[in-house]
Amino acid sequence: MTDETPKSALRKMLEDNKSFSEELPPGQLDSIQYEQNPYITVLTCCDSRVRIRAFLADPHPTDNVFVIRNVGNQLAVTSGSVDYGVRHLKTPLLLILGHTRCGAIKAASTDYRKLSLHLVQELNGLHIPVRGMDPGTDDDVQWLQAVERNVHYQMDLAVQRYAPEIAEGTLAVIGCVYDFANLYKKGIGKTVLLNVNGESNSDVFTKSDLMDDLPADLVDSVLPGSPVPQ
Amino acid sequence: MTDETPKSALRKMLEDNKSFSEELPPGQLDSIQYEQNPYITVLTCCDSRVRIRAFLADPHPTDNVFVIRNVGNQLAVTSGSVDYGVRHLKTPLLLILGHTRCGAIKAASTDYRKLSLHLVQELNGLHIPVRGMDPGTDDDVQWLQAVERNVHYQMDLAVQRYAPEIAEGTLAVIGCVYDFANLYKKGIGKTVLLNVNGESNSDVFTKSDLMDDLPADLVDSVLPGSPVPQ
Amino acid sequence: MTDETPKSALRKMLEDNKSFSEELPPGQLDSIQYEQNPYITVLTCCDSRVRIRAFLADPHPTDNVFVIRNVGNQLAVTSGSVDYGVRHLKTPLLLILGHTRCGAIKAASTDYRKLSLHLVQELNGLHIPVRGMDPGTDDDVQWLQAVERNVHYQMDLAVQRYAPEIAEGTLAVIGCVYDFANLYKKGIGKTVLLNVNGESNSDVFTKSDLMDDLPADLVDSVLPGSPVPQ
Amino acid sequence: MTDETPKSALRKMLEDNKSFSEELPPGQLDSIQYEQNPYITVLTCCDSRVRIRAFLADPHPTDNVFVIRNVGNQLAVTSGSVDYGVRHLKTPLLLILGHTRCGAIKAASTDYRKLSLHLVQELNGLHIPVRGMDPGTDDDVQWLQAVERNVHYQMDLAVQRYAPEIAEGTLAVIGCVYDFANLYKKGIGKTVLLNVNGESNSDVFTKSDLMDDLPADLVDSVLPGSPVPQ
Repeated sequence: MTDETPKSALRKMLEDNKSFSEELPPGQLDSIQYEQNPYITVLTCCDSRVRIRAFLADPHPTDNVFVIRNVGNQLAVTSGSVDYGVRHLKTPLLLILGHTRCGAIKAASTDYRKLSLHLVQELNGLHIPVRGMDPGTDDDVQWLQAVERNVHYQMDLAVQRYAPEIAEGTLAVIGCVYDFANLYKKGIGKTVLLNVNGESNSDVFTKSDLMDDLPADLVDSVLPGSPVPQ
Repeated sequence: MTDETPKSALRKMLEDNKSFSEELPPGQLDSIQYEQNPYITVLTCCDSRVRIRAFLADPHPTDNVFVIRNVGNQLAVTSGSVDYGVRHLKTPLLLILGHTRCGAIKAASTDYRKLSLHLVQELNGLHIPVRGMDPGTDDDVQWLQAVERNVHYQMDLAVQRYAPEIAEGTLAVIGCVYDFANLYKKGIGKTVLLNVNGESNSDVFTKSDLMDDLPADLVDSVLPGSPVPQ
Repeated sequence: MTDETPKSALRKMLEDNKSFSEELPPGQLDSIQYEQNPYITVLTCCDSRVRIRAFLADPHPTDNVFVIRNVGNQLAVTSGSVDYGVRHLKTPLLLILGHTRCGAIKAASTDYRKLSLHLVQELNGLHIPVRGMDPGTDDDVQWLQAVERNVHYQMDLAVQRYAPEIAEGTLAVIGCVYDFANLYKKGIGKTVLLNVNGESNSDVFTKSDLMDDLPADLVDSVLPGSPVPQ
Repeated sequence: MTDETPKSALRKMLEDNKSFSEELPPGQLDSIQYEQNPYITVLTCCDSRVRIRAFLADPHPTDNVFVIRNVGNQLAVTSGSVDYGVRHLKTPLLLILGHTRCGAIKAASTDYRKLSLHLVQELNGLHIPVRGMDPGTDDDVQWLQAVERNVHYQMDLAVQRYAPEIAEGTLAVIGCVYDFANLYKKGIGKTVLLNVNGESNSDVFTKSDLMDDLPADLVDSVLPGSPVPQ
């Protein structure tokens, strides 16, 4: 838990925003005054350790990531918001992004009925992926397996939902895990790519049109070395 | 709409993450490996122009903002996720953050029944704040009034929900508008503060315990000069 | 409000069930032991004055109405349950049934933000139909117009959702108002038919394949005499 | 699956309603024209075999059961509607009613991700009760155990939510299973009572103020003989 009080937290937030505004290069936001043009829709967890910054080289001239966040990066909870990015703003990429050591995944494996009804309802959405996990375990292998199952599960739901756009070639949906713990041994803060348009075999998806001309070192950097045992 | 294709968008995302991971100072994330300690829970819109970076001086040693995002920054849509931040992680501050020129607010003022059922359902949540707005207007005054009404509306819901924590003094809930368009004439990228714990009169809330010893220039920087006419 | 106490209410309920079970003709439920075969899915309001009995001649050999009920007979709130009836049980008919003097419609026209967050969320779904109604009015014409707009609105959502089944001819979706107040002058307890598969012109839908060989007096009994002015 | 077509189903429904309206005794609905006064709020499943008639002796002068129905009789799915009955209409009794051979319970024990996203979302709510059940089993003991766990689970959620009303003595919440299959050997169409205000020990709840002066044969008729083994 943080050491901040409501008072100190408020001050920190206001000061950070003041600095941000004062240091913003003139004209930097001119192009986004009347519309947004994100290149990617990201559905991810609320966890404060998940950094959008990790997918947004800074300073970009404009922000360009349309972001939906709820506990456990769940499509069903806010699929309307995801529709807004994919179908209304027509971003060509939808990223479903889980992360290592996800507290929501762990909570969903326990008997959480004493939490608030709204939180119960959201954790319910992690039902299928947490099956078989020891309730509340800290074991990194089991925990990461459940995180991965959740990414594949959300991918299944998304690939069904956006099948027309994927078939037309106007959308790719990808499933990743953001790894701030370096459990995949690819570097702290790296994401690994687990699923592309519903395909989870990396031998297949790396040879697809979508990825076949990416530099080998870039491809290598996003594939888990040895897969997490399931 | 963006010029990117699924293929180019994927490459951009992977490259940005690769750079991020490679440039991360060693040890920077050590302290967050086993738990997160956010000082603030932020409920905001998905709009790509809303930057969490605006409330997160960078480089911070760790990320410390727990973030929920859905179209129109609505409590009801993902109140379970907000509960997770406020009641489980016990952040001392909850920020409800609208923004200028919010597309969701505009959409909710129109007859949107032809959108997907999930998006219909989420836009429905903006019912009360968009009342009285000309459907689909681009008029900045009307539009910003509806954005403000939505912030106050979400604040009403949140202040009711978290009344015990506010009464105990362990939580403050604040309502702001992030202004990338400088409609408030306080600077591009500034937020203005409209509501503190349900109080919308700035003469009152700036004299509250929460704010009474903030530097005058900081207070001044967050208050709208002349209020938007309602 | 009822005069019953928790104690007397419990007794009444238990006694009514005891009588029901004791008076049930032997063998009457034999055919439904292992599966249900409803001929209709009904989405209606929770209002205690809405009687499923009105669509279920008694004694039927078995119950045959699959029923979803929420305040304001809203598709979005429990569309999964409606899917279960339409797509899993494959009932050939989906009835969306509003009713006269619907309290949910009236409540949704007011500023209801002080209600529970869950109820707020459900009333939000009546956003579009209550537009233009005087908040909280008891005027039967205005109120019934809003009830009708809600039926047409839910029909729009349903006809979009079940377009494939309607096109195949395996499903008809109809929108009705149950009129316990005889506002349509067709008899207390009658329903009137307002919309068939998205068509709201009764000259058209009564001549469709679905209705063209119904007895004239039956057709006449379900059409409102003079339409409610809109 | 039913043998009816959309056409025949429509005719049946219209004819049943016509008869109902024509046979309604004059004046029978006079008292409910301007308000409803239900004595009970019932949260139950959509299953066509669940008869509200089982708790509503007929002919009652008026309907008096406020009913919420979704697959698996889940509080979280439509808790706003339940609030409307309990807190707005102030019924003194809330009945959470599961039933034998519930198809939703069985479906929730399988991997249902290929169903519609809305149905996935609703089945997710049955996560905790179906744990440990063999996926998709037809075994009556296992299946009924899961039905019972769901009743107790929904009761836990409801007792938490309505704790103030229960403490004041203005509300009792009870959990029952409607047994059209006579698995409890108390008669076809009987309900058994499993939980009163969170208490699941029948020795305790039958001696509570709420039940202590009920006739012994009535109490006996609602208690399962030997409990289902857990």
